[in-house]
Amino acid sequence: MTTKIGILGYGNLGRGVESEIKKNPDMELYGVFTRRDPDTVKAGLGTRVFDIGEAASHKDDIDVMIICGGSATDLPHQTPEYAKLFNVVDSFDTHANISEHFKNVDGSAKAAGKTALISCGWDPGMFSLARLYGNCILPEGKDYTFWGKGISQGHSDAIRRIEGVVDARQYTIPVEAAVEAVKSGEQPELTTRQKHTRECFVVAAEGADKRVIEEKIVNMPNYFSDYDTTVHFVSMEELKRDHSGMPHGGSVIRSGVTGPSNEYKDVIEYNLKLDSNPYFTASVLVAFARAVARLHREGKKGACTVFDIPPAYLSPLSGEELRAHLL
Amino acid sequence: MTTKIGILGYGNLGRGVESEIKKNPDMELYGVFTRRDPDTVKAGLGTRVFDIGEAASHKDDIDVMIICGGSATDLPHQTPEYAKLFNVVDSFDTHANISEHFKNVDGSAKAAGKTALISCGWDPGMFSLARLYGNCILPEGKDYTFWGKGISQGHSDAIRRIEGVVDARQYTIPVEAAVEAVKSGEQPELTTRQKHTRECFVVAAEGADKRVIEEKIVNMPNYFSDYDTTVHFVSMEELKRDHSGMPHGGSVIRSGVTGPSNEYKDVIEYNLKLDSNPYFTASVLVAFARAVARLHREGKKGACTVFDIPPAYLSPLSGEELRAHLL
Repeated sequence: MTTKIGILGYGNLGRGVESEIKKNPDMELYGVFTRRDPDTVKAGLGTRVFDIGEAASHKDDIDVMIICGGSATDLPHQTPEYAKLFNVVDSFDTHANISEHFKNVDGSAKAAGKTALISCGWDPGMFSLARLYGNCILPEGKDYTFWGKGISQGHSDAIRRIEGVVDARQYTIPVEAAVEAVKSGEQPELTTRQKHTRECFVVAAEGADKRVIEEKIVNMPNYFSDYDTTVHFVSMEELKRDHSGMPHGGSVIRSGVTGPSNEYKDVIEYNLKLDSNPYFTASVLVAFARAVARLHREGKKGACTVFDIPPAYLSPLSGEELRAHLL
Repeated sequence: MTTKIGILGYGNLGRGVESEIKKNPDMELYGVFTRRDPDTVKAGLGTRVFDIGEAASHKDDIDVMIICGGSATDLPHQTPEYAKLFNVVDSFDTHANISEHFKNVDGSAKAAGKTALISCGWDPGMFSLARLYGNCILPEGKDYTFWGKGISQGHSDAIRRIEGVVDARQYTIPVEAAVEAVKSGEQPELTTRQKHTRECFVVAAEGADKRVIEEKIVNMPNYFSDYDTTVHFVSMEELKRDHSGMPHGGSVIRSGVTGPSNEYKDVIEYNLKLDSNPYFTASVLVAFARAVARLHREGKKGACTVFDIPPAYLSPLSGEELRAHLL
């Protein structure tokens, strides 16, 4: 059975989904829906590009629509809206608003008889699963999440908004000593500053005062003031040459104890090392889209998260094949 | 809602389950069922001990029976037998016979309207889940499983069967260079010898020829001949003092590629470091027993594996709580 996928929104993530679908012989890309003029969009070979306004007229041709908008302004209205027409998957990642988003999407999807998976990707997503399994298996323990080394889009954007900054990239870097302490099973208490450092590569405008820019960065509340931050000024050429990738990753570690007197230490670590954040996220979305199509065929209606999906549903293989080859 | 757990078989694993249940306030230990004379069994404070022959008369008092026998001779008949009376969980780990075991347990459980989870623990179990998620998310890639550093019961037993050996412990040790090569995203081809080494601590009988024992160990087919094996002769006192624990662990690594030209490397690693193999395995069994009780309440009948269980079912928390705190 082939699962037909639509892509709504054609930025980095949408292009990732377009690419990763091709690695799954049981899936087919139906087309891309964009807010831009379709004639101006350069898509991959064989990809059809539609105006987003036409989406409704394709609702019976698509098994799952993967919504590839941003969490800040797109997904809060797009996912509930398109869940009225399609089974949907999104990567909503504003942790504080997940409950509200779930409720909105659940309402739309239930009313329309559709299946909707929200907050899929790696964090939230695979990291959430690592936290859940870890918490259930080791109820007495502590969670640690380290991010990086990787590019933080939000922090890079925050630097770019400073006067005199032409462009910037910010790397979030876990503190090696903190990671090692956690992996030893010690369950240390760690401050924000002890867990991550931030390294910034900044292109300054000609004549801008670099000392002032650096001060503004390292003292920026929420983004940088709680961290040890290093600022490097580089040329635009250097930035493009050395910092144009989007690597990311990190670790979720559950450190817990077992034994009648809690005498045994156990450490569970889930670790990702990704050359490309958006392509890996896309790859997760595609696997979960397969599960959403199956849940819908079985009659599931409403919103769900990665927590609700039996792992076998992510695979094109039968239960018998999975037991024989992966168990 | 309290889930009442029975333990069938009271060795290391059964004692582990007895201990780990206490870390879960929503679970209650009903009692232990043993083949030994109950009056001779020293159980934990407050644990009731029953003769295994009485199990049937307690069938309505227990939500899930965790079968803690061995995979070689106990589980192949115990799990299908007790699935006629109880919802069951086992840790059957003979990979080659899982299909047959599943079929036998499924038949019993379906006929009796019970829910049965087989092959739960860390491998098979959590490692299987890591393999499944990894394969689905990165369909173009390669799997690597490393075990250790840890005690292999099977290899220790094999050494003990050699003439002139009084006692022995065998550690399986992953080759650091191989693990690092895999974690770099290189997808190396690795032989058995390149992945693990084996280190043996052996107590020889007085007057036994240690050279002969060592030869027999390192050349033993299946167990040692494909590995670089080191043999240390120690006194019984040293063995007990330094090697009486049951640490284990290991890593499942999925190394794959994303991107239109497969240009991005991604490495997913799931890593366990366990002070006590049986207590951690017990801890996994207990969490999954919670899921089995819930699946049974929802009407699920027959056998399943960790692949079939929505992760949320392992947790005592509601969907809303999970979304708020762990997503």
